[in-house]
Amino acid sequence: MRMSQLFLRTLRDDPADAEVPSHKLLVRAGYVRRVAPGIYSWLPLGLRVLAKVEAIVREEMGAIGGQEVRFPALLPRDPYEATERWTEYGDNLFRLKDRRGNDMLLGPTHEEMFTLLVKDLYGSYKDLPAILYQIQTKYRDEARPRAGILRGREFIMKDSYSFDVTDEGLEAAYQAHRAAYIRVFDRLGFEYAIVQADSGAMGGSASEEFLVVSENGEDTFVRSPGGYAANVEAVTTVVPDPIPFDGLPASHVEDTPDTPTIETLVAHANEAFPRDDRPWTAADTLKNVLVMLRHPDGSTEPLAIGLPGDREVDAKRLEAQVSPAEVEAFDETAFAKYPDLAKGYIGPGVLGTEKATGIRYLTDPRVVDGTSWITGADQPGKHVFDLIAGRDFTSDGTIEAAEVRAGDPAPDGSGPLELARGMEMGHIFQLGRKYAERLGLQVLDENGKLVTVTMGSYGIGVSRAVAAVVEGSYDEAGIVWPREVAPFDIHLVVAGKAPELFEGADAIVADLEAAGLEVLYDDRPKMSPGVKFKDAELIGVPTIVVVGKGLADGVVEVKDRATGERRDVPVAELVAALTA
Amino acid sequence: MRMSQLFLRTLRDDPADAEVPSHKLLVRAGYVRRVAPGIYSWLPLGLRVLAKVEAIVREEMGAIGGQEVRFPALLPRDPYEATERWTEYGDNLFRLKDRRGNDMLLGPTHEEMFTLLVKDLYGSYKDLPAILYQIQTKYRDEARPRAGILRGREFIMKDSYSFDVTDEGLEAAYQAHRAAYIRVFDRLGFEYAIVQADSGAMGGSASEEFLVVSENGEDTFVRSPGGYAANVEAVTTVVPDPIPFDGLPASHVEDTPDTPTIETLVAHANEAFPRDDRPWTAADTLKNVLVMLRHPDGSTEPLAIGLPGDREVDAKRLEAQVSPAEVEAFDETAFAKYPDLAKGYIGPGVLGTEKATGIRYLTDPRVVDGTSWITGADQPGKHVFDLIAGRDFTSDGTIEAAEVRAGDPAPDGSGPLELARGMEMGHIFQLGRKYAERLGLQVLDENGKLVTVTMGSYGIGVSRAVAAVVEGSYDEAGIVWPREVAPFDIHLVVAGKAPELFEGADAIVADLEAAGLEVLYDDRPKMSPGVKFKDAELIGVPTIVVVGKGLADGVVEVKDRATGERRDVPVAELVAALTA
Repeated sequence: MRMSQLFLRTLRDDPADAEVPSHKLLVRAGYVRRVAPGIYSWLPLGLRVLAKVEAIVREEMGAIGGQEVRFPALLPRDPYEATERWTEYGDNLFRLKDRRGNDMLLGPTHEEMFTLLVKDLYGSYKDLPAILYQIQTKYRDEARPRAGILRGREFIMKDSYSFDVTDEGLEAAYQAHRAAYIRVFDRLGFEYAIVQADSGAMGGSASEEFLVVSENGEDTFVRSPGGYAANVEAVTTVVPDPIPFDGLPASHVEDTPDTPTIETLVAHANEAFPRDDRPWTAADTLKNVLVMLRHPDGSTEPLAIGLPGDREVDAKRLEAQVSPAEVEAFDETAFAKYPDLAKGYIGPGVLGTEKATGIRYLTDPRVVDGTSWITGADQPGKHVFDLIAGRDFTSDGTIEAAEVRAGDPAPDGSGPLELARGMEMGHIFQLGRKYAERLGLQVLDENGKLVTVTMGSYGIGVSRAVAAVVEGSYDEAGIVWPREVAPFDIHLVVAGKAPELFEGADAIVADLEAAGLEVLYDDRPKMSPGVKFKDAELIGVPTIVVVGKGLADGVVEVKDRATGERRDVPVAELVAALTA
Repeated sequence: MRMSQLFLRTLRDDPADAEVPSHKLLVRAGYVRRVAPGIYSWLPLGLRVLAKVEAIVREEMGAIGGQEVRFPALLPRDPYEATERWTEYGDNLFRLKDRRGNDMLLGPTHEEMFTLLVKDLYGSYKDLPAILYQIQTKYRDEARPRAGILRGREFIMKDSYSFDVTDEGLEAAYQAHRAAYIRVFDRLGFEYAIVQADSGAMGGSASEEFLVVSENGEDTFVRSPGGYAANVEAVTTVVPDPIPFDGLPASHVEDTPDTPTIETLVAHANEAFPRDDRPWTAADTLKNVLVMLRHPDGSTEPLAIGLPGDREVDAKRLEAQVSPAEVEAFDETAFAKYPDLAKGYIGPGVLGTEKATGIRYLTDPRVVDGTSWITGADQPGKHVFDLIAGRDFTSDGTIEAAEVRAGDPAPDGSGPLELARGMEMGHIFQLGRKYAERLGLQVLDENGKLVTVTMGSYGIGVSRAVAAVVEGSYDEAGIVWPREVAPFDIHLVVAGKAPELFEGADAIVADLEAAGLEVLYDDRPKMSPGVKFKDAELIGVPTIVVVGKGLADGVVEVKDRATGERRDVPVAELVAALTA
């Protein structure tokens, strides 16, 4: 491919809306181009990289017996109605009507369609197990499309689905995918973590995410020295033992004027009611946070969360717990409806379905029986001290909504957690029989009895992976592609304007291509070497060959894009050197 | 690929909604599966064929210097508003709103987007010429999706666009595409015609369609012994010379009771007013047809068409003439608004923008000055005879809306036309500067002056081509794939249940695959040979190898799917025989 012909313009300036390196570099180097928020076109260079990522995914899916199919993106409403996802997806779903007024959607994922396809064609246990997959364009109407193709509204995913009669079969399909994903992500050169993606209530390995470690990642995850790893939504709190009530002091209400915040409350408590053994801290207080849940059907419901005052509510953890409901603020209008709520001084005295407000009240798992708290007394300027959980108040249950902090113990006892950030690049999930039940996917077993099929669902963000590779591999000058996904193997630059340089380069390119190497040939006659070198560094092909003055002596320069290392190589040995 | 593993169920019965052979066969043989009207999934076999068609298109586009990019399917409204296509597409466009209320569409074609992309990145005549293309999923909300993937609502197209500064450049890009299309369609094994797709007013070759000849085709086209070929919309009428008025008789109104149709009128005329020289025929009458045009903005406008009574109005020709307006019936409500229209006896006396009705009146090009007609006298039961065009009445212009009939003269004098049916598989079109002007695509020319770019637009129906290949290549037993697009090279059937047959077949398959052949291996242990043979014929792989009793003597049977020819081949010579 000759640069003089290539549809490409490298840009000097970062796009105005770009925040993360991959977004800036992929636009500047001419790989992608924005069409609308979260919607991008692939330019020739980008399409080449995308094709290489797709080929890796296709190879590894084939290796575990996956069979490729392709579903439409435009889908009818009915199957998604049957699983309630038509509603549960909320605003994230692109919905439309066709000319006859039928409701349709742009598929965000295809569990329903694959379930129906297998139901359509298969009927016996002998047909299973099966793994089907597609590499296909998906749609999600993200609230905040950002970071270029890292989080788009139209994007390419590999989604696969496994179909088995037995739980053991599902486990095997799951493990096969896990191994395939490890091979894919290794080949893409990612530094990644495999983290638990749910609480483990379904069996520990029922759902794992592959997160590419990156400080620009949107997801926070935790890991311990002993090998525990989970996304924050999945982390479970290590619950302390309950404390016997015997000998605990009685609770007492105290005047605490002007202490609507934890900070002011702790300060006042230490001043007016100092402890003998140590100062009061925020961890001694029980903070009660109110939110409003909006259910998919549009109805709303208040929720109170009681948690130690030294921790905030983590929005993602809370959302995961209440999904498919969405979390909204508990605003002044809502407060106005509950005169029993003393803002800044709310306590368990009025919270709970059996209490004055009737508001459902869930507490952090650390609030075990016998723990003692300073908390609101439900009157302005008053708090109650020595309020004992289980003795003086109870909640309607527990909720994992408090933030996870570095140093918290791993739930499996493998040591203190550290926090890291990552980008979700893959997700493997043992769906079980939920979709098969809702859509009626059954097969005859060995005894001629109908049994419900058990399924797994597995995704890789293919277009996102292109950006993620860049996030992990760039420098000040531009992109540094790993060899396996680079748009070309060699970027050959003619440094100079003498005709013999171009003639020599033509011959070298022909040799390299004959040897099976893909060459991007910068043959632009009037461009200065400086501009060409800058473009080469920005574009990021792993090996740069410079045809310049040395050619007269039969030598060209070979530069490694990643290390910057340069060496002179005789033209006669070039093919051998580059294919080594 | 082993049949025992392949995600496939062949079906005995045709799908209920299938009319054309390709639809029936592709569903029965397990290539595609319906999801919604006009919306299909590709199963593993189908996806393999699709990939081969795409590869051919990609190769030939690359050979003319086309560079591949990929646009999103989900597009913003603005560019399509600038070219008025947001409105002009009418109900054929899938429109939707995103969560912020922005209007979006699913792209039916991408002229606007490519124009803006080139505008975005290029600025000089030195950057041109350029040919960009994509192979991408498109959407049209067809009123009558039918014939499976032959006419879907979600489908795959190759669309390319050429960008040039000069008309000569455009002509060269057009001719390069024309040659590439000929290579693609030859490789796909099509019998096709290249037909003029417009009246030639823009220069004859400004727009041509590639139609695959097929009696199930939706398009009618014409061709002459001398090589003229056009779709019916593009055929122009050979206009007779005008006739001098001198000596023509005066017109006269006659009673013609109960003659509201051409048939009754001609019969009555021959009875009551016989000619000396010959009987009256329908060709002597001038029929006036009323229609209602609906413009994209929703407004309506009546139109009267005068044409010889022996011809009907051709809906497609009329639609092409009035596009983007749509043609609707002129119903009773419309008649009620024009009391001057005597239904069944309407004549030029009240038609025309200057006449009583004010209805625009266009006549067939055959209605030249001096031609004499029997036509309505605008009173029930009366017609006027010897009404001379140009002397006794005029119209507001001519219109090419009359049907084209076999035997009509070709407009270029190359002989009588014959009619044939075809499927539109490709379209090449010199767009000129329309899109560039509307969207502001200009580049600096050699003198530093801004000039508007001239463009071409070129399409191939890629998913449709898969069905079209089948339409041209099947028999009673199933599909007969041409070698270049077949899902596999060899379909190997084990005929028998003895373990040594399967062992022998395993080894043969390994040898064939080692030789680079793609083998579909029917290894199903309990299936009868009869069922396997039926499946093989239905699936349509070009060569069927049968491993049966002869294996004991070192021989297998090789059957040609197309000819049915069988021959025994020694196993040792099989690879050589099949790669020959």
